[in-house]
Amino acid sequence: MAQDPIDQGTDASPARPLTIAHIARRAGVSVPTVSKVVNGRKDVSVKTRRHVEAIIREQGYRPSRRESRSAPLLELAFHEFESEWAGEIIKGAQRVAAQHDLGLVMSDLAESPTEGRGWIETVLALRPRGVIAVLSDLDEDLRRQLHTRGIPLVVIDPTGEPLHDTPSVGAANWGGGLAATRHLLSLGHRRIGVIAGPQSLLCSRARLDGYRTAMDEAGIEVDPALIRYGNFYVPEAIQEGRALLDCDPASRPTAVFALNDLMALGVYLAARDLRLHIPDDLSVIGFDDTPTAKWANPPLTTIRQPLSQMAVTAARLVLRLAAGEQPAETRIELATELVVRSSTSPPRR
Amino acid sequence: MAQDPIDQGTDASPARPLTIAHIARRAGVSVPTVSKVVNGRKDVSVKTRRHVEAIIREQGYRPSRRESRSAPLLELAFHEFESEWAGEIIKGAQRVAAQHDLGLVMSDLAESPTEGRGWIETVLALRPRGVIAVLSDLDEDLRRQLHTRGIPLVVIDPTGEPLHDTPSVGAANWGGGLAATRHLLSLGHRRIGVIAGPQSLLCSRARLDGYRTAMDEAGIEVDPALIRYGNFYVPEAIQEGRALLDCDPASRPTAVFALNDLMALGVYLAARDLRLHIPDDLSVIGFDDTPTAKWANPPLTTIRQPLSQMAVTAARLVLRLAAGEQPAETRIELATELVVRSSTSPPRR
Repeated sequence: MAQDPIDQGTDASPARPLTIAHIARRAGVSVPTVSKVVNGRKDVSVKTRRHVEAIIREQGYRPSRRESRSAPLLELAFHEFESEWAGEIIKGAQRVAAQHDLGLVMSDLAESPTEGRGWIETVLALRPRGVIAVLSDLDEDLRRQLHTRGIPLVVIDPTGEPLHDTPSVGAANWGGGLAATRHLLSLGHRRIGVIAGPQSLLCSRARLDGYRTAMDEAGIEVDPALIRYGNFYVPEAIQEGRALLDCDPASRPTAVFALNDLMALGVYLAARDLRLHIPDDLSVIGFDDTPTAKWANPPLTTIRQPLSQMAVTAARLVLRLAAGEQPAETRIELATELVVRSSTSPPRR
Repeated sequence: MAQDPIDQGTDASPARPLTIAHIARRAGVSVPTVSKVVNGRKDVSVKTRRHVEAIIREQGYRPSRRESRSAPLLELAFHEFESEWAGEIIKGAQRVAAQHDLGLVMSDLAESPTEGRGWIETVLALRPRGVIAVLSDLDEDLRRQLHTRGIPLVVIDPTGEPLHDTPSVGAANWGGGLAATRHLLSLGHRRIGVIAGPQSLLCSRARLDGYRTAMDEAGIEVDPALIRYGNFYVPEAIQEGRALLDCDPASRPTAVFALNDLMALGVYLAARDLRLHIPDDLSVIGFDDTPTAKWANPPLTTIRQPLSQMAVTAARLVLRLAAGEQPAETRIELATELVVRSSTSPPRR
């Protein structure tokens, strides 16, 4: 295995893995106490746990093969479990888990009261073969804790700056933003509004940049007033949609690009309140292509990201890492695709 | 524990649990082979597995405490994983799992190629504390296999006739059907169509019977032509909705009761095709109150079933059973509730 950056600056020879006994001596605690911390057991004080974790970190402990024997489980951790979007990901992960006779453990990072603390302890206690984290890079402490226990991590849709080297699977967000905007432009739209996601999420920023580039290609200056920020959920999108649409028809956008399908539903409801008919008075395009899009009223034109396939790819990747392989590609981006339905048409004027 | 009907007719004294060695002697196979079958290991031929399972059944084997030591897991098995409906159930089960430091394993009975065979083997190998099966009673073989391994089972929304005594959690489906129909009647509707679910599902039958009783209360004879059968998904509901609505306005229903929210979306799309405006030309009411209902266009009046709470109740029940408790109530039905939104109004004529 390549020299791991986390292992640097330790006093351990890579050839001779550190034992729990070594960690216990260094930490000045008993071997069973270290064992409890390593295995996520609850009967250790927070103070002792932190101290032992610090020594583990400092000493670059990695479990020996016997110690790290994993359970036939694959862990799928959501930053916040919500909507059909998660359902598509579950389906993909489940398919791979079933193929490998693994149980798929679903967890919710938001479910734990104290900053994912309860979450990591459950994971360490279960010893899954690997962890897939969705829409969360996990903080450095959590990543280290998994790493020191030999539990590989793959992130779906990484959120932060890609400074650390966690393997990840994402979709072509920028290309999707470009394709969505080009579709609206090709229909003749010029005033195109956007309901973006949180600025903290890279996937939202990439989609928005795709929009900017398409507008620039078409020689249209982007009006900053036409870009509103939501949070990927419906209620805020209704508000932002109203803010965008409730104005003089001359300055009203003729089309809106919502950066996910749920927010497109919010735009639908805002348009309904303002008695604007979709697509005659307003074209709407989303992003994701969850079942929501297909069965919306009217059926939603959107950018398909292959969520299920992303999960399949992430699951296969994490299992390869767990098997000790070193895949050539550990940062994978899958293609997105325009799906035209009934919510977009040429503008009336 | 009460004498279990499955244990009857055995030659074993209930006071002295049968050992794996006893089963092996009876079956004429080795002890490790029986152990493999008991623990869902794969390296046993199907023929041997069936033979050993038959002896286990016949002899009423139950694992001793040491043998049955379970993993800190709770298994949530879907008959077919689909839609936000499942998401609500996952959220509830996850909450209870987190409270008990258990991993929530999600599985899909439909994912296994040969009649849930792969599914049960994975479950037996994982040894979860208990199994919650959603919309499936599991067949008798599967129930017995869990039972003989001491893994308790609770069913959410049982589908079959309640002849066997598996503990279950459901919702007041009949009462919900009654409330939905009474709501439409109170608005002045008389010609009320229904898109029912599969006739094989008790929950659908109960909702439909609630409709019949409400119509009967109001002195309205049910026109059989107004009752169409879908499968709880959108595409068939679009078809059935068209069949119901594409006729002479005088005989067209002024309201439709779709027995779940997804099928209500299908009715929306059928109405759209026929240029019928909801609720002016047609009132629509659903059942479930998934997020889909709240964010539909227009927002859907529906019957709320507390899916998340049903899962919480089922999870707590199965964990009590796993702890050896004997809860007084093992067939629990939670209340449903009318939620009025924008898809229902008085009929025009």
